Amino acid sequence: MASLVEPRVLKGFRDFLPAAEIERRGLVERIEAVFRGFGFAPIDTPALEYAEILLGKGGGETEKQVYRFNDNGGRDVALRFDLTVPFARFVAEHRAELTFPFKRYHIAKVWRGENTQRGRYREFTQCDFDCIGSNSAAADFEILLMMKEALSAAGASGITIRLNHRGLFNRFLQTIDAASKSGEILRAVDKLAKIGRDEALKLLPSELDRGRAELIAGYVEIKGSWDEILDRMTEAAGGDNPDSQRLRTLRGFMLDLGIGDTFVIDPSISRGLDYYTGIVFETFLDGMPSIGSVCSGGRYDRLSGLYSKDGLSGVGSSIGLDRLLAALEAPGKTAKRETYAELAVICVDEGQGGICQRIAQRFRAAGIPTEVFFEAKKQGAQFAQAEKKGTRWALIPSAGASAKEDGAGGPVRLRDLGERCTGAELSVDAAVDFFKKLKNETGTREAY
Amino acid sequence: MASLVEPRVLKGFRDFLPAAEIERRGLVERIEAVFRGFGFAPIDTPALEYAEILLGKGGGETEKQVYRFNDNGGRDVALRFDLTVPFARFVAEHRAELTFPFKRYHIAKVWRGENTQRGRYREFTQCDFDCIGSNSAAADFEILLMMKEALSAAGASGITIRLNHRGLFNRFLQTIDAASKSGEILRAVDKLAKIGRDEALKLLPSELDRGRAELIAGYVEIKGSWDEILDRMTEAAGGDNPDSQRLRTLRGFMLDLGIGDTFVIDPSISRGLDYYTGIVFETFLDGMPSIGSVCSGGRYDRLSGLYSKDGLSGVGSSIGLDRLLAALEAPGKTAKRETYAELAVICVDEGQGGICQRIAQRFRAAGIPTEVFFEAKKQGAQFAQAEKKGTRWALIPSAGASAKEDGAGGPVRLRDLGERCTGAELSVDAAVDFFKKLKNETGTREAY
Repeated sequence: MASLVEPRVLKGFRDFLPAAEIERRGLVERIEAVFRGFGFAPIDTPALEYAEILLGKGGGETEKQVYRFNDNGGRDVALRFDLTVPFARFVAEHRAELTFPFKRYHIAKVWRGENTQRGRYREFTQCDFDCIGSNSAAADFEILLMMKEALSAAGASGITIRLNHRGLFNRFLQTIDAASKSGEILRAVDKLAKIGRDEALKLLPSELDRGRAELIAGYVEIKGSWDEILDRMTEAAGGDNPDSQRLRTLRGFMLDLGIGDTFVIDPSISRGLDYYTGIVFETFLDGMPSIGSVCSGGRYDRLSGLYSKDGLSGVGSSIGLDRLLAALEAPGKTAKRETYAELAVICVDEGQGGICQRIAQRFRAAGIPTEVFFEAKKQGAQFAQAEKKGTRWALIPSAGASAKEDGAGGPVRLRDLGERCTGAELSVDAAVDFFKKLKNETGTREAY
Repeated sequence: MASLVEPRVLKGFRDFLPAAEIERRGLVERIEAVFRGFGFAPIDTPALEYAEILLGKGGGETEKQVYRFNDNGGRDVALRFDLTVPFARFVAEHRAELTFPFKRYHIAKVWRGENTQRGRYREFTQCDFDCIGSNSAAADFEILLMMKEALSAAGASGITIRLNHRGLFNRFLQTIDAASKSGEILRAVDKLAKIGRDEALKLLPSELDRGRAELIAGYVEIKGSWDEILDRMTEAAGGDNPDSQRLRTLRGFMLDLGIGDTFVIDPSISRGLDYYTGIVFETFLDGMPSIGSVCSGGRYDRLSGLYSKDGLSGVGSSIGLDRLLAALEAPGKTAKRETYAELAVICVDEGQGGICQRIAQRFRAAGIPTEVFFEAKKQGAQFAQAEKKGTRWALIPSAGASAKEDGAGGPVRLRDLGERCTGAELSVDAAVDFFKKLKNETGTREAY
């Protein structure tokens, strides 16, 4: 026998034990149900791709964080570090097979060799949803509505989605003759909330004089009602134009649905990346602004531009699942459980292994997840174990039952582990009926 | 602009487009519902681990297939090549936090740099389910029953689970003084079905004389009813013993549930790996024996033996999802669709983007996945697109509706895209009621 290997995971990586995994799955399933409800379809792509596909021919800053290596065939490969780049490659490769507008979601793991000190993980889950091949305001609005619905389904009670338009900001920069520096300006504006006005102004390109720097600061600090802010932004951008019109249309759609309060127009939202060209947005939990944006995105013009000459226009958003989970867990509201089982069939005689499964199958067929206990330990110990795992009910078969003498395996008794009381003997049929009624009254605790 | 990069995936890797991914998800969800129904809980582990954890200190044959590299921090790491080894590490690491018997499932991707010529993939999905910390016959039986139930839920119509006992075979080898060569003998027996009796006999260790080789061949070829086969195996193994008794108990449990026909006792099932010590099993689709086993496993004694001195006993099985999917697809029975949406809201006026979402939200709230179309193309083209994606119904809003004049956004008309007929005008309320009734009558086509 070889000497022992210490069991441990890599720094920044995690195991998910049943209670944590059941909670994470529940969150994903609730979010996914919203995506599906809007007619968005799932796709999947490989975890491993050619490094050239993921990083472009240049490589650059991203590369330092990427798990990149040569495979056994000598290929230069890398683990995906986000879901956007593989999606761009996917669309370029399968363009002829897709129906446009193409509405897809992709919930999957990504890997980054980031510094783990700030509580970041090296393996984490992203939930991306995008609609490409339509430049309509209705597509922008759908993504915004889905963010609201998905976060609400996830259990985030109060959310605010902050919205801006990159094109409108660029028009403003043109009026002050600063459009050629828009990339650097956007990155400076992106830091404003974190480092404050004075520090952010210092990050502006040195070619900008004090007056124009102040104009930029003034623009991003516009305050007022939706209409007031939009009017002042429009004015600063040289008057009415398609971008201000887009924001006005989106505002109208929000009011049509009576959900105007969820959305705030905020000229300071910039999303640092050059990538975006239209609306941009970030989502904050009202009770926990410090956790930052849990869902962000925007409209872009040239998806797949690296792989084909005619990049596609689209709009999309991404939920940071781990950050959202951390936010939802913080108040300790979620009741953890280690199993989906709602009923445990107690073992009174190990020779009844078949009978107990036969009884359990009746409940499973009625939609009641049911665990069978195998070993004839003391009943109290079995009850305690079921309760510890989060199972509410126990079923106690009668000691002598066999398949031959009683096809149903009854009579049985039910115990409510929460109330710590055991009912009278009843037939398996009656016990199944009892659970069906219980389920109709209370609903099951979660989809399973 | 940099020159273009050719969009392509690595050899042996695949994209999943919506129709394929919806089908794959459906399969996983049906299987997972069975696991949950038995009280098995999900876990997750990292895709990337220390190479030493995955490969042991030796490395060896497996290593050639593994994606192994040094990360940016100089660590020797590898992508998991199965879910068993990470599970053993998981149990050793978290033993104090787990409730035993520990019943878990894990559905996840694994990576192997295998030769892709035989239609194998380098990235594929495994569905593992194990019960560890119990040596009872009921635990063995539960895994067998779950295999039957999971494959049945997956849509595999006729299945046969072939079952043997490794311990009983070893007892037989002892009676002919060949136990010391059991590893090589098992690997030869494992090939018998593929290469035939004569070739398999040649693979037996050279120390075995012709007489013992014939005895081994005779043992694995025992035929007859369950009881006859078990009696003859027991006799060849030197008489009644705990291993033959275990098979007899399992047979009794099968008969208790009236599912004896699903299970065949087959002394030629060996599962090449040294790992197994108790029952071993493979599952074949009655209509497609050529596809091989779609679900296999067995009982083992020393899970986590590499990481801790006291390995745990357990029993488990693994479904090869890609192979199963290929088998289910072969008859072309599955109706492909590219969306979960059952209803498409047609666009008659792009200014109605808010109204259309408002109408769609009513259906979504009633559990009807509903896609909104954005662009006011010809209605025929919109109908065709919805139908192509697999959506059965279309809703046509009235041209002039606005949120102000009619809170509900009605009246609307419904079109059955299958029957190509459009109904009379009705209110949104009435349309939602119509779908609720339809859903109660027909069920939804799939969980969403």
